[in-house]
Amino acid sequence: MIKKIEHVGIAVKDINKSNLLFEKLLGEGSYKTEIVDAEGVTTSFFKLGSQKIELLEATSKNSPISRFINKRNEGMHHLALHVDDIEAEIKRLEDEGFSFVSKKPTNGADNKIMVFLHPKSTNGVLVELCQDIK
Amino acid sequence: MIKKIEHVGIAVKDINKSNLLFEKLLGEGSYKTEIVDAEGVTTSFFKLGSQKIELLEATSKNSPISRFINKRNEGMHHLALHVDDIEAEIKRLEDEGFSFVSKKPTNGADNKIMVFLHPKSTNGVLVELCQDIK
Repeated sequence: MIKKIEHVGIAVKDINKSNLLFEKLLGEGSYKTEIVDAEGVTTSFFKLGSQKIELLEATSKNSPISRFINKRNEGMHHLALHVDDIEAEIKRLEDEGFSFVSKKPTNGADNKIMVFLHPKSTNGVLVELCQDIK
Repeated sequence: MIKKIEHVGIAVKDINKSNLLFEKLLGEGSYKTEIVDAEGVTTSFFKLGSQKIELLEATSKNSPISRFINKRNEGMHHLALHVDDIEAEIKRLEDEGFSFVSKKPTNGADNKIMVFLHPKSTNGVLVELCQDIK
């Protein structure tokens, strides 16, 4: 089951600059920076109650974040939903007719495995399902 | 102070269709539909833990949601942050150099007053500050 928003992902051009901006906005600094090679991103996390804001900067021109910024500029990139059992949730959503960017969970930032639903099946929203690595 | 994400707003073309889609996605239906004349939107809310997902459909061609969809298509529209004292937060953020679409709080959906920060000052993210009407 989907129980909560885990984080909101924001695509940025310059993560150092954006870290300062979001520290001013949220009143508290980033608690973690992490490079996720598989996704071609440098990430930075801010706590906001029980949720997080994740900033994402591309590490190369082929990164999905580079492509997103070239097309849409900086802004909200994805909505991550926390699940306890990612395989069960993939099956449930597939049975409901949703499609996935890939159905094979991969390692994401912040000790998670994750998959993305295809935004064509979710009103243009890039939805991430993420589960803690146990 | 900004303590939590209140909701994530998603621009949609057909709220009835999207209500069904998000019910399938989240496993629970919308708990409220509300028209906000001042913003030119019909809204629909889904609970997700302590947060909400707000779907927004334009009520006219001049609605900000129409303009958003014409430009960017359907998808994530804004990130709403809960504050206890909106006037104090507007002042704090103005002193920090942020700009606002308008600094005068207006009535929003779901028993809130709210303002939007200008996305040019927040990395392309349309940030809403919202406070409960007491």
